[in-house]
Amino acid sequence: MFLHRKETIQPVKVDKPDAAFGILLLEQFGGATGELTAALQYWVQSFHVEDAGVRDMLQDIAIEEFSHLEMVGKLIAAHTSKLDQTKVYDAPLFKIKGGGPHFLDSQGSCWTAAYINEGGNMVRDLRANIAAEAGARQTYEALIKSCDDDGTKKTLHHLLTREITHAHMFMNCLAAMGKLTDPMFGNVPPDDTVKLVFNLSQGEDVRGPWNEAPDFEYIADPQPAGGMPPAPVNTDDEFHMSKKADLTGKVKDLVS
Amino acid sequence: MFLHRKETIQPVKVDKPDAAFGILLLEQFGGATGELTAALQYWVQSFHVEDAGVRDMLQDIAIEEFSHLEMVGKLIAAHTSKLDQTKVYDAPLFKIKGGGPHFLDSQGSCWTAAYINEGGNMVRDLRANIAAEAGARQTYEALIKSCDDDGTKKTLHHLLTREITHAHMFMNCLAAMGKLTDPMFGNVPPDDTVKLVFNLSQGEDVRGPWNEAPDFEYIADPQPAGGMPPAPVNTDDEFHMSKKADLTGKVKDLVS
Amino acid sequence: MFLHRKETIQPVKVDKPDAAFGILLLEQFGGATGELTAALQYWVQSFHVEDAGVRDMLQDIAIEEFSHLEMVGKLIAAHTSKLDQTKVYDAPLFKIKGGGPHFLDSQGSCWTAAYINEGGNMVRDLRANIAAEAGARQTYEALIKSCDDDGTKKTLHHLLTREITHAHMFMNCLAAMGKLTDPMFGNVPPDDTVKLVFNLSQGEDVRGPWNEAPDFEYIADPQPAGGMPPAPVNTDDEFHMSKKADLTGKVKDLVS
Amino acid sequence: MFLHRKETIQPVKVDKPDAAFGILLLEQFGGATGELTAALQYWVQSFHVEDAGVRDMLQDIAIEEFSHLEMVGKLIAAHTSKLDQTKVYDAPLFKIKGGGPHFLDSQGSCWTAAYINEGGNMVRDLRANIAAEAGARQTYEALIKSCDDDGTKKTLHHLLTREITHAHMFMNCLAAMGKLTDPMFGNVPPDDTVKLVFNLSQGEDVRGPWNEAPDFEYIADPQPAGGMPPAPVNTDDEFHMSKKADLTGKVKDLVS
Amino acid sequence: MFLHRKETIQPVKVDKPDAAFGILLLEQFGGATGELTAALQYWVQSFHVEDAGVRDMLQDIAIEEFSHLEMVGKLIAAHTSKLDQTKVYDAPLFKIKGGGPHFLDSQGSCWTAAYINEGGNMVRDLRANIAAEAGARQTYEALIKSCDDDGTKKTLHHLLTREITHAHMFMNCLAAMGKLTDPMFGNVPPDDTVKLVFNLSQGEDVRGPWNEAPDFEYIADPQPAGGMPPAPVNTDDEFHMSKKADLTGKVKDLVS
Amino acid sequence: MFLHRKETIQPVKVDKPDAAFGILLLEQFGGATGELTAALQYWVQSFHVEDAGVRDMLQDIAIEEFSHLEMVGKLIAAHTSKLDQTKVYDAPLFKIKGGGPHFLDSQGSCWTAAYINEGGNMVRDLRANIAAEAGARQTYEALIKSCDDDGTKKTLHHLLTREITHAHMFMNCLAAMGKLTDPMFGNVPPDDTVKLVFNLSQGEDVRGPWNEAPDFEYIADPQPAGGMPPAPVNTDDEFHMSKKADLTGKVKDLVS
Repeated sequence: MFLHRKETIQPVKVDKPDAAFGILLLEQFGGATGELTAALQYWVQSFHVEDAGVRDMLQDIAIEEFSHLEMVGKLIAAHTSKLDQTKVYDAPLFKIKGGGPHFLDSQGSCWTAAYINEGGNMVRDLRANIAAEAGARQTYEALIKSCDDDGTKKTLHHLLTREITHAHMFMNCLAAMGKLTDPMFGNVPPDDTVKLVFNLSQGEDVRGPWNEAPDFEYIADPQPAGGMPPAPVNTDDEFHMSKKADLTGKVKDLVS
Repeated sequence: MFLHRKETIQPVKVDKPDAAFGILLLEQFGGATGELTAALQYWVQSFHVEDAGVRDMLQDIAIEEFSHLEMVGKLIAAHTSKLDQTKVYDAPLFKIKGGGPHFLDSQGSCWTAAYINEGGNMVRDLRANIAAEAGARQTYEALIKSCDDDGTKKTLHHLLTREITHAHMFMNCLAAMGKLTDPMFGNVPPDDTVKLVFNLSQGEDVRGPWNEAPDFEYIADPQPAGGMPPAPVNTDDEFHMSKKADLTGKVKDLVS
Repeated sequence: MFLHRKETIQPVKVDKPDAAFGILLLEQFGGATGELTAALQYWVQSFHVEDAGVRDMLQDIAIEEFSHLEMVGKLIAAHTSKLDQTKVYDAPLFKIKGGGPHFLDSQGSCWTAAYINEGGNMVRDLRANIAAEAGARQTYEALIKSCDDDGTKKTLHHLLTREITHAHMFMNCLAAMGKLTDPMFGNVPPDDTVKLVFNLSQGEDVRGPWNEAPDFEYIADPQPAGGMPPAPVNTDDEFHMSKKADLTGKVKDLVS
Repeated sequence: MFLHRKETIQPVKVDKPDAAFGILLLEQFGGATGELTAALQYWVQSFHVEDAGVRDMLQDIAIEEFSHLEMVGKLIAAHTSKLDQTKVYDAPLFKIKGGGPHFLDSQGSCWTAAYINEGGNMVRDLRANIAAEAGARQTYEALIKSCDDDGTKKTLHHLLTREITHAHMFMNCLAAMGKLTDPMFGNVPPDDTVKLVFNLSQGEDVRGPWNEAPDFEYIADPQPAGGMPPAPVNTDDEFHMSKKADLTGKVKDLVS
Repeated sequence: MFLHRKETIQPVKVDKPDAAFGILLLEQFGGATGELTAALQYWVQSFHVEDAGVRDMLQDIAIEEFSHLEMVGKLIAAHTSKLDQTKVYDAPLFKIKGGGPHFLDSQGSCWTAAYINEGGNMVRDLRANIAAEAGARQTYEALIKSCDDDGTKKTLHHLLTREITHAHMFMNCLAAMGKLTDPMFGNVPPDDTVKLVFNLSQGEDVRGPWNEAPDFEYIADPQPAGGMPPAPVNTDDEFHMSKKADLTGKVKDLVS
Repeated sequence: MFLHRKETIQPVKVDKPDAAFGILLLEQFGGATGELTAALQYWVQSFHVEDAGVRDMLQDIAIEEFSHLEMVGKLIAAHTSKLDQTKVYDAPLFKIKGGGPHFLDSQGSCWTAAYINEGGNMVRDLRANIAAEAGARQTYEALIKSCDDDGTKKTLHHLLTREITHAHMFMNCLAAMGKLTDPMFGNVPPDDTVKLVFNLSQGEDVRGPWNEAPDFEYIADPQPAGGMPPAPVNTDDEFHMSKKADLTGKVKDLVS
């Protein structure tokens, strides 16, 4: 059950409303790396994670992300509070669609659940969450660099900080399972190609711990090992129907 | 520059074509966790990653993922090779849209670049890649469990294995930067709330290394610290225009 | 600030888990008429609605809808609790993407913010909300009719009921503003065509209070009043560049 | 059967072509509140509405909306008629994608059928239509306020007017069914919670006809009535498989 | 200006309603190759095509496609006319979303304007239209093969036929401009690489009129001609900031 | 199997980095007419095309398009190489999402597989490809016209040229099958309406080879030939349930 208090979880302060900056802030309201993505991703995972501890952690963080989504929304509302004094081409998104936040990113694209990464396995979910936190942190850094309002910056700094906290929590949880530094998980062990690294992009090749012994065996000039795959045999094309044996020849015949 | 050999990188063998199973396989061709997502994510990262070693690794793996996309596509082509003998409601997707792979997932939804997670920072990118590998591995496990064709299973097992290899490579790379087990990265240090954990979802609370000292300070009953945010002052509503001072009262007046 | 209690707002009970029915339930978790749409629509409106009373109402209902989203999610989790005993083609969505809810509809399409209707005006928002409640109620009725599990039906019945309550609240609010039965709102009065009704679809024409006097003036055989619009004059086509005066003639010349 | 006359239904006049304003106009051509949404929504409803009178009304209005879509398109075509004299960054959308209208909104996002609200019930459809008209009216007001071309304004004023007319028609139709002011409809009566209102968002609480007696019973401090829901029991995680009884303990064991 | 007659342009007859087949028919109502795509593509082109003859042709065909969309919709309405006697899992889409057509494809995905191909040039538009007709024809053939209702088949046969007619019209129009068999168009002549064909996919190479002299010059073993591109120099990564000169070395140093 | 060489297939040179122009270039990286669309469309077709010659051609061109995608990506990377010296509102997309290419179009919309046109028939596929090439060529022309950097222009000119080459190859291939100038293909012959042309859009009617004898028979004033379609009989509306015989009357009764 959800409950709500109208005060925000942390202060939201905007010194100088700027609707153009409000558009950039949408990236963290309705964008791929935004708070809605984080809140819904962690929360939806909590429905299928069997471990009560991990489930509690996911819900605690999800609820904080909803509270952060609210903070970003309040920032945007404050930045559009003088929209009637804003010229249309300075903030066309808000002038046409209305002030305040919308579930759009800074390019005006609708939020989509395709941003969410989850399902079927707790290790997979936690790795997805560390990635989500990294994306969110990165966008907050970009917003801070583009911002010249001190109040807004302070709020964004707090939100950036919390992404680090959450990443730390997810990492400790994976570490507790032994899965922070172990690439393997799940119920299917790898086959015997697991140590091979293929140098498929040639030129300026670089060697390092990601493709060297002892963890890896480097194949400097990889060749196809799969042989020629069978050709398809089921399209509707009328050309194929008459003469399957020599289709290429047939096309050539047609022009000779 | 891309080059192509018509032989596959590893063998693709289907013993018993089954168009219905081909629909499930689409998840790894045109789905969120599929090979197209992986190939394009790693490859697009390589354009902005400055480090030549990481860039080379991203390109090597991306090219392998394109080769895996081809293997999944060949699996699907083989499973639809007897489509003319398949009843329409056993595989409606292929009967209506044609045999062979399409850039759709197992639910028939178009692939979208919203699945991709990348941008602006190498650590963020590598964390996104570990998450991508975990999702792909999980889907391959689900497909193997749902599959009763030995040839297909063997191919899927290889593809699952390689996701583990790639995760290992990305992990070693992050470890080399000291960022595999450190939640912090980027150019903005956190503020002083970085150790707080808020127990926002109450009931069945569980304590563990993800919310305990020494890394964290647990707030058992968090309260709003932000105060009441300002109300919006810029909508177009004609009610607001006439009587901003007491809008609530106004609505109540209207009915008394 | 959001808070959460792990108990649900109302009971969720599933007597006989049925993953296939779980797929249908997704319509109200991640579908157009689902609880996420309602929760986010009302909540995002609350950021731009100036009236404190309407804002409070929107937030109260939004929080209830989040709590309902949780109930639907718990229904789905319960229906997929025996997924390992389910055949793959009975519930392919869950077998491939994992058990529990996802932000997808019953057809496997990702939730999108394009489902949300809001912006710029309180009357517009409230009308959108009455429509949203009507869609949700309709889908719950469809689910109840398709359901043969008594526990599930009882939960769905409660959720259907609450959509009626919310619609009632929105209606009373609009009535308080005098806008429940008055089509007009906003700051721009209509022009003098406001009473005209055009019989543009001819055959089986029916007259009724929606196209009769005194509210309307019926035009039985409407004719174009706008005259011929100007032709475009700015495409890149090279044909146009050479001979703008007589383009049609030109194409005819080319074949004679 | 559709027929077309090349003259427009009402005059379209642009005094001063302005490609930048043309981009804003796209909101009503290919945007959520635009004429395509209205035309297709009403028309698709007409296929499943059994009542011949309502069906005729839906078709009459749908055909008018198609005619309005044409008017908006002609406005856009006129505003891009001097595109070759426009600087690229003044109207990049048209410079790259070509002049004239496209099925995109003012942010360049593709029109999607997710904007449409319809299905299964005439009352639900009509409520959706009143909402659609309100959104369209609101966007026209925003466009008029952002416009400084008298010819364009006059056309937009007519289009805004017609949304009021259509809303009036839909309202009269609902009133004829007794469903304009009655929240209830459909074949399932509500359960006994229908009068409850939950004060779930606390702080600045406001009372009014939307949450007061006699229509409603206000619960000032709502508590969870559903009890603790069952935990999920079907994920693929290998941790869960080994030790279902005490999963939380297990994770804690791993680190001690 | 649009006008409508309630009779259909050609007969629509369904002998045996079958809601499952109705789902397949959605492909031509709200799918990529469907009548909505065709109608909107040709019609939106007519706004920017300067040539009055081509514009008239586009509008004539567009209006016919709207009339065909209506026919497909009536087919679907007829196939869902006994929906109350249909089991839920035989046609879940209609049971949950309501009978009659929706702007979804046979997989339940929303129609999107991303299906439309148009803009900026008449030759480009006409080529896109020939492609659209080919896709529509192909889907009608697939539907006819999957159909066992004679009335439905006859209607589909007519709709398939008309796609051939339209393709013929578009071809004659391109031929009149000399652009049916000439690959070149537009205002920019090609550079001197226009005859080269690169054998980039090696193995099972086939020669034919599409890669042979005199039209083409075949490069059997193409090599990169572009040299090494510059590395990126502007990401936010803190590793890059400290030591741009030897980034690869740096990562290696970190682990030694 | 895919292979990669780090040198580009043709030179990529940017004389003056301009992040704003980089945004426009995204249209050919992640846009509808871009290189990703072309590469994936031709390549996915190759899985179902039975003819070995056409399959080889599709793969050769697909691999070239991947190499072109790389060139466009390198152009964008170069144009964003001085992003730290760019003002945020000059290139907000890159400032917020990071430098280098992304799979977005110039409007910031995600690439979607809905752009791809393929399936089930070789003739259909090849027609789709000619259309794809025409769209790509048109966008390159638009970009060249908007560009003032000589290096960039030269690269774009090469890419435009190659679209002409590919169109030529596809045309020769269709000509070899006799399908470049013949509208008919597939396994279903047309019915006897194949020569009719309906003048459905009246006013400014133009006659030409696309609607004249001997290929066509022109119907100057077409009338509906289908008769009145049956009304739907299966919605859930409670009004319908009580009184199916005279629904219209019923609604009228309600208000009298």
